[in-house]
Amino acid sequence: MAGRVVQNIQRADADVIDGLAHAGVATVHEAQGRIGLLAPYMRPIYPGARIAGSAVTISAPPGDNWMVHVAIEQLKPSDILVLAPTSPCFDGYFGDLLATSAQARGCRGLIIDAGVRDVRDLTQMNFPVWSRAVYAQGTVKAVLGSVNVPIVCANAAIEAGDVIVADDDGVCVVKRADAAEVLKKAQAREALEEAKRVRLAAGELGLDIYNMRPKLEEMGLVYE
Amino acid sequence: MAGRVVQNIQRADADVIDGLAHAGVATVHEAQGRIGLLAPYMRPIYPGARIAGSAVTISAPPGDNWMVHVAIEQLKPSDILVLAPTSPCFDGYFGDLLATSAQARGCRGLIIDAGVRDVRDLTQMNFPVWSRAVYAQGTVKAVLGSVNVPIVCANAAIEAGDVIVADDDGVCVVKRADAAEVLKKAQAREALEEAKRVRLAAGELGLDIYNMRPKLEEMGLVYE
Amino acid sequence: MAGRVVQNIQRADADVIDGLAHAGVATVHEAQGRIGLLAPYMRPIYPGARIAGSAVTISAPPGDNWMVHVAIEQLKPSDILVLAPTSPCFDGYFGDLLATSAQARGCRGLIIDAGVRDVRDLTQMNFPVWSRAVYAQGTVKAVLGSVNVPIVCANAAIEAGDVIVADDDGVCVVKRADAAEVLKKAQAREALEEAKRVRLAAGELGLDIYNMRPKLEEMGLVYE
Amino acid sequence: MAGRVVQNIQRADADVIDGLAHAGVATVHEAQGRIGLLAPYMRPIYPGARIAGSAVTISAPPGDNWMVHVAIEQLKPSDILVLAPTSPCFDGYFGDLLATSAQARGCRGLIIDAGVRDVRDLTQMNFPVWSRAVYAQGTVKAVLGSVNVPIVCANAAIEAGDVIVADDDGVCVVKRADAAEVLKKAQAREALEEAKRVRLAAGELGLDIYNMRPKLEEMGLVYE
Amino acid sequence: MAGRVVQNIQRADADVIDGLAHAGVATVHEAQGRIGLLAPYMRPIYPGARIAGSAVTISAPPGDNWMVHVAIEQLKPSDILVLAPTSPCFDGYFGDLLATSAQARGCRGLIIDAGVRDVRDLTQMNFPVWSRAVYAQGTVKAVLGSVNVPIVCANAAIEAGDVIVADDDGVCVVKRADAAEVLKKAQAREALEEAKRVRLAAGELGLDIYNMRPKLEEMGLVYE
Amino acid sequence: MAGRVVQNIQRADADVIDGLAHAGVATVHEAQGRIGLLAPYMRPIYPGARIAGSAVTISAPPGDNWMVHVAIEQLKPSDILVLAPTSPCFDGYFGDLLATSAQARGCRGLIIDAGVRDVRDLTQMNFPVWSRAVYAQGTVKAVLGSVNVPIVCANAAIEAGDVIVADDDGVCVVKRADAAEVLKKAQAREALEEAKRVRLAAGELGLDIYNMRPKLEEMGLVYE
Repeated sequence: MAGRVVQNIQRADADVIDGLAHAGVATVHEAQGRIGLLAPYMRPIYPGARIAGSAVTISAPPGDNWMVHVAIEQLKPSDILVLAPTSPCFDGYFGDLLATSAQARGCRGLIIDAGVRDVRDLTQMNFPVWSRAVYAQGTVKAVLGSVNVPIVCANAAIEAGDVIVADDDGVCVVKRADAAEVLKKAQAREALEEAKRVRLAAGELGLDIYNMRPKLEEMGLVYE
Repeated sequence: MAGRVVQNIQRADADVIDGLAHAGVATVHEAQGRIGLLAPYMRPIYPGARIAGSAVTISAPPGDNWMVHVAIEQLKPSDILVLAPTSPCFDGYFGDLLATSAQARGCRGLIIDAGVRDVRDLTQMNFPVWSRAVYAQGTVKAVLGSVNVPIVCANAAIEAGDVIVADDDGVCVVKRADAAEVLKKAQAREALEEAKRVRLAAGELGLDIYNMRPKLEEMGLVYE
Repeated sequence: MAGRVVQNIQRADADVIDGLAHAGVATVHEAQGRIGLLAPYMRPIYPGARIAGSAVTISAPPGDNWMVHVAIEQLKPSDILVLAPTSPCFDGYFGDLLATSAQARGCRGLIIDAGVRDVRDLTQMNFPVWSRAVYAQGTVKAVLGSVNVPIVCANAAIEAGDVIVADDDGVCVVKRADAAEVLKKAQAREALEEAKRVRLAAGELGLDIYNMRPKLEEMGLVYE
Repeated sequence: MAGRVVQNIQRADADVIDGLAHAGVATVHEAQGRIGLLAPYMRPIYPGARIAGSAVTISAPPGDNWMVHVAIEQLKPSDILVLAPTSPCFDGYFGDLLATSAQARGCRGLIIDAGVRDVRDLTQMNFPVWSRAVYAQGTVKAVLGSVNVPIVCANAAIEAGDVIVADDDGVCVVKRADAAEVLKKAQAREALEEAKRVRLAAGELGLDIYNMRPKLEEMGLVYE
Repeated sequence: MAGRVVQNIQRADADVIDGLAHAGVATVHEAQGRIGLLAPYMRPIYPGARIAGSAVTISAPPGDNWMVHVAIEQLKPSDILVLAPTSPCFDGYFGDLLATSAQARGCRGLIIDAGVRDVRDLTQMNFPVWSRAVYAQGTVKAVLGSVNVPIVCANAAIEAGDVIVADDDGVCVVKRADAAEVLKKAQAREALEEAKRVRLAAGELGLDIYNMRPKLEEMGLVYE
Repeated sequence: MAGRVVQNIQRADADVIDGLAHAGVATVHEAQGRIGLLAPYMRPIYPGARIAGSAVTISAPPGDNWMVHVAIEQLKPSDILVLAPTSPCFDGYFGDLLATSAQARGCRGLIIDAGVRDVRDLTQMNFPVWSRAVYAQGTVKAVLGSVNVPIVCANAAIEAGDVIVADDDGVCVVKRADAAEVLKKAQAREALEEAKRVRLAAGELGLDIYNMRPKLEEMGLVYE
């Protein structure tokens, strides 16, 4: 039932979070076995941002942003707000005033399976948002939702304190308990990729680097 | 019935129009009671433009841009072309040549519930467009439409001479007769928001500024 | 049936290809009689790129990018990779490593009726992509597809060696055998348009330049 | 501004309304010059219904069906409820209890640019609905909307008392003042179509019945 | 990581499951506080089915239905298969042969956030399916997924053994542990609704039955 | 270029065509190696129809159905009309009068990547249509298209005389030259499936019938 605010959530280590931000969404997603990706309709309001932080989750009624105010009080520095409406909605739950308030508390950005507005101001404030829509439609403050409860946001299950990673490729969630392990795998992956990048840039083919030719022949690939 | 061009339309005062542009879509939309917003699929071809102007409306058949030529003759400086196809269409009704012509007559931009093309040129010309699609598909000149008749564009009812406000948040229409009053309310709103922005930036919470705590408690919000 | 790689494809002349790139999608599309345009959902990952090249086509299973490695070996300088999944798919078939490899072989870009990832890196590498989605979801290498077979990509029929033209307006395919003729028509069109642009910029109306008034009157257009 | 209920609306004549129902959406739409059609995403919950009635309009907040209760009191026998949310919404505003209430007052059906639920019951009750979605998501009763004010529903402008015609082809609105005239044209059209149907069924071609061959030849159609 | 089959899952009581089926999706969803609804794009392949059962969950790669065979072995009578692809996919994972196999084991239906095929046969077999698409595209058996692991299906989090309720209004999931309690509330709700239905059918208004008038007046609703 | 009518097209044998209809879309699609399927948004206007026939193709401008009249003259008994608009369009190109005319010439149905209307009448006439939309919006007769030229319809390449198979699962095209061979494979497939159906109905598992267990174990599937 709606109407709950969970106050003391656990968070992953700051170093782990920052490491995951550096690795980026595609690498983190691979490193954890290709799980946790939000739907592809979640797009950044401006290019180039790459962030990670602990999720402060919001379950909000359609067209009602009251719980965003409640959630902002729960923010710690480096957190990320994550809002899922209880039914599909495109309204602009969040604009420059809320961003000012969230940023004052150290919030790194917003993930919202709905709309956002004042995007020109948000861009100038360097407050990144990944959303389903940009839409000036305002919201009301009439019905309760919940803060820091488990939500499903853009087809991904997210709990408060999970690590959110977001960049131009989209948004990925890492379970808090897995974050350190995922970071290690992501960093190992980055090292491997760097080596391959050098070889590929020099003109070597993936067909050879990954030794794909025998398997392709066995599968029956025919060169004409 | 199609085939009409209304020539002498009334427009709002230039000062009012420019004031509304300065206020922006989200503020204007709030100021007039949250009406008049076009559908969220209407997106700008490049970020950063913020304009207002009087609507010169075009009702056009699908895939036929003949009426755009007719409408351009009706443009006065600071006007905005607003095109609604008579059935859903994504074709590129408008490109750099039409933009050159419209810009020569002082047109500030185009709102089109269909497609636009030559967007690289339009960007270089600083001619902003909000559209449903970017699509190179050309159109014909075979069937009549109408100019300066009432239209429904992207789910908003628009009459010739209404004020169009458009920026990165989308597009909003203000009834011509209401424009001056809406501007006053928008400016009052901007002043209020500025005061709140200062307090929020200093770390005060919306929960306190707006005195939300008693109501939330009354509604049954539980902190765990 | 899947599992074929056609190796020696024919290509259009380099000068023709480069001429088509200069003309751009909208002009080329008009010049060849308004055919060959890909669906409007194909969008560039960053604005401003304008390329043309010979298509190296890929028919790939959903969520399986094995054939991209096979296709890269078939690339000649100035080619463009064109991938169509065998059923609708949004996965990120292509990222920075594949782009490094493709770029090392002179590939000018990618057209993909599916997803792409690492778009920040691709942007920094100046490797343009037109795609249906940006999505970090990875793919497997388990099932064969084909390379350089005829495909339907984003509702357009494309054969290996056809010329692909892509810019901010979208993507267009020109049949290889028609490319030289289409270029001539495109250049003629550009010359004509330039003359009209000058007149339109000076304030002349399309209604007069194209002598539309008699026809509009005959059709029954009424000025009120 | 929201919060208004207009009580005494004017309606078209019952005979005219019933005549329009008999003619059906496609014929009525043609007869009035191809205007007034709602968006193609408006679909019936079951096939075979064909109704017409006077619009009792509802402007409702997203996820809030309070105004439906208010509107039901305004219903006269043969009316049709027409609901537009103030921003895009898929929630099930309406189910079997509201249908029972509406039907008790003689309401012929519902047109809703949002969701509906209990569709099995509604089908059994023979209460037709045209909607954007079928969705069990409930709504609240917290925020005011308005009843019998002008709305834009599924991209069509509708005023209280306008005649709504709905069948398997979709939904069309006829301005109240035009309804009698539109009916005459629709009936004339039906008579004409019947005559043509007989000839077409006998194997005559539209090319000959409508004398299209000379015009096609003049336009340059080539038979190969 | 993929590649797991959980074999011994717990299920709710058969009586509770059947009671929830009888109550239907809209009532169950209300009874449990409006949570657990799958996305509105999930539609039945034929009207009139109303089922409930224990979820046997499948996490499947895009275009790969191998795990459906694995899952069928895990079915107990009255279970429902629930499949979520690991990335968006419309392929027809399931047809008449798999339905024959599932039905032989007592399976009551399929919920699939992807495509289904052979729908004419499935209809004749009285095997109901709620899906995102109907699509004849076949799938491969090349990559592992998992069975009876937690999934997110059509934006709802589902665990093996949860109760699935599905009818013409869509699909809803009830946590296994909550099922008995939800059933009680659903039945209470049904009783209440029946009483209201009688009063509404007799012409009483919701405005009076729910005593809404004072609150509406207090909120400022104006009758004109 | 538009404006061509190819008159003498070749067709597959009547027996082959009828055999393919009997096999149905899913089986035919499998039998020819999973190619030729039209996009999943192509849906029948009523359930239960299963047809095959030779394609008479129409390339039509958006919102212009002139070429349908031209195409009807080219119909032979058992043909199927296949219409692709030259840019995305939802208009109702086809209704009961055209269906009467087509049916008088033996046409078995219509495949249209656009809209259709009069669907109640078409259902009563038993004239099946697979379309992208049902929409009452009418069309004009102003611009030429072509008949019996190669088209891309709903993402599938189709030539005049190709065999179209359509049923509740969607629409598939079989190249004319391949039709006899595909039919043989489809019939072989049906025989095989029938044998499997019997075993599956008796409770045998696909895991055993297809001997999947060793391969799954080798791939690493773990039972918990």
